[in-house]
Amino acid sequence: MPIMVRTAAALIIGNEILSGKIQEQNVELLAKELFALGISMRKIVVCPDEVEVIADELNALRCRYDAVFTSGGVGPTHDDVTVEAVAFALGRPVARFEEIEVLLKAFFGSRLRDRHLRMADLPAGAELLRSGEGGWPAVRVDNVYILPGLPEVFRRKLPILREVLQGGPAFVNRTLLLLCDEGEVADLLDRLVQAHPGVTIGSYPLWKGSEISVRITFDGRDEEAVERAAEALKSALPETLLSDRSIP
Amino acid sequence: MPIMVRTAAALIIGNEILSGKIQEQNVELLAKELFALGISMRKIVVCPDEVEVIADELNALRCRYDAVFTSGGVGPTHDDVTVEAVAFALGRPVARFEEIEVLLKAFFGSRLRDRHLRMADLPAGAELLRSGEGGWPAVRVDNVYILPGLPEVFRRKLPILREVLQGGPAFVNRTLLLLCDEGEVADLLDRLVQAHPGVTIGSYPLWKGSEISVRITFDGRDEEAVERAAEALKSALPETLLSDRSIP
Repeated sequence: MPIMVRTAAALIIGNEILSGKIQEQNVELLAKELFALGISMRKIVVCPDEVEVIADELNALRCRYDAVFTSGGVGPTHDDVTVEAVAFALGRPVARFEEIEVLLKAFFGSRLRDRHLRMADLPAGAELLRSGEGGWPAVRVDNVYILPGLPEVFRRKLPILREVLQGGPAFVNRTLLLLCDEGEVADLLDRLVQAHPGVTIGSYPLWKGSEISVRITFDGRDEEAVERAAEALKSALPETLLSDRSIP
Repeated sequence: MPIMVRTAAALIIGNEILSGKIQEQNVELLAKELFALGISMRKIVVCPDEVEVIADELNALRCRYDAVFTSGGVGPTHDDVTVEAVAFALGRPVARFEEIEVLLKAFFGSRLRDRHLRMADLPAGAELLRSGEGGWPAVRVDNVYILPGLPEVFRRKLPILREVLQGGPAFVNRTLLLLCDEGEVADLLDRLVQAHPGVTIGSYPLWKGSEISVRITFDGRDEEAVERAAEALKSALPETLLSDRSIP
């Protein structure tokens, strides 16, 4: 049974992001994945490794959006407090999950320490979500999805989300690249926004040295409406302004 | 007169980040900059291009932290609503700033459209912050710093922040790279955390194929305390676990 999700938020946990020590790499992948699933990501929050702060942020987000995806803080060291914080936010105890314990023992072999087994502790009642392709599960408890921070491991959870989540009708996206500054088409875009209310139109300048161009994006759940809006822009512009370069 | 700032938050404005269309590139630079200035960034929020949402997020952040840095939504098109939202949040009207108008006219020349001049509209009473090196100013109003989203332009504002902001005593950082999994040193790290309360210790695994290592970071405002904590870890470990590779 797929889990219906229309709106979502992400909670990125880690001092290392807030101090600029490590570049955040997961949010963009999650955003693309949710967009492709027809799920509207409405907010992203980055917070420090502090149990009460994480729990407060989580409670604010999970009451407001259908799903919250956390990233980070699930390893075996003192600064990994996400599971404790999620359990605290949800008013649940933490329990040892034998199935994860077995996976950890097989993975670490002779390097295994007791502390590694802390990664088998999850909020009681959590569900382990599996992909048809096997591999390690992802963790869901209520509407909170606890995902790892390490990008290599985070990435492996995305196929699981793809299998278990059911968004709204998929978003369709069209993009046009114009060889001008966005200010030169701003009035035209205003008229398009008025005339195509079901389509979200975005304007993103690209500066490469002295070359100025602008990427205009058209998003919506109705493919025909998105096409109509994009075609309306094309036909309103002199051909010399339209680039046929592929969009980065 | 430098502006004293101890704690900060960032508000990143843009549907394009939430939908994964464009990769966020400014937060990491801002985080590094603030860390170097001795300013503690406590929260990052990404929100959509919607006036009321932006204003609500901004008000929540600016009451809680000494400074809020916004990024995005300051161009000339319909989806650029940051200035309107900041003005709304602060209960100020929007006013035309002649000095910016002059800069815009010089920059765009014959390509200038009326719409470009909207970029000269700012919340009334805003201060234009200048670098000793010249160039375009950055915008401050109350404790809100309105910065652009375009990474090439965002970057140029950082030297201005460096000149005008005065943080706490600078943070010092030491990093060690260990050739083991973090679970193997977790107990030892617990003891270090206990013994060095003024130092923030972070543990960040690095996975490159089958090679597993871990980066241990020591942060604090007291250089000697940071050194002592790092040395305590070094002396507690067999030399074979310590890598002398430079830290990525």
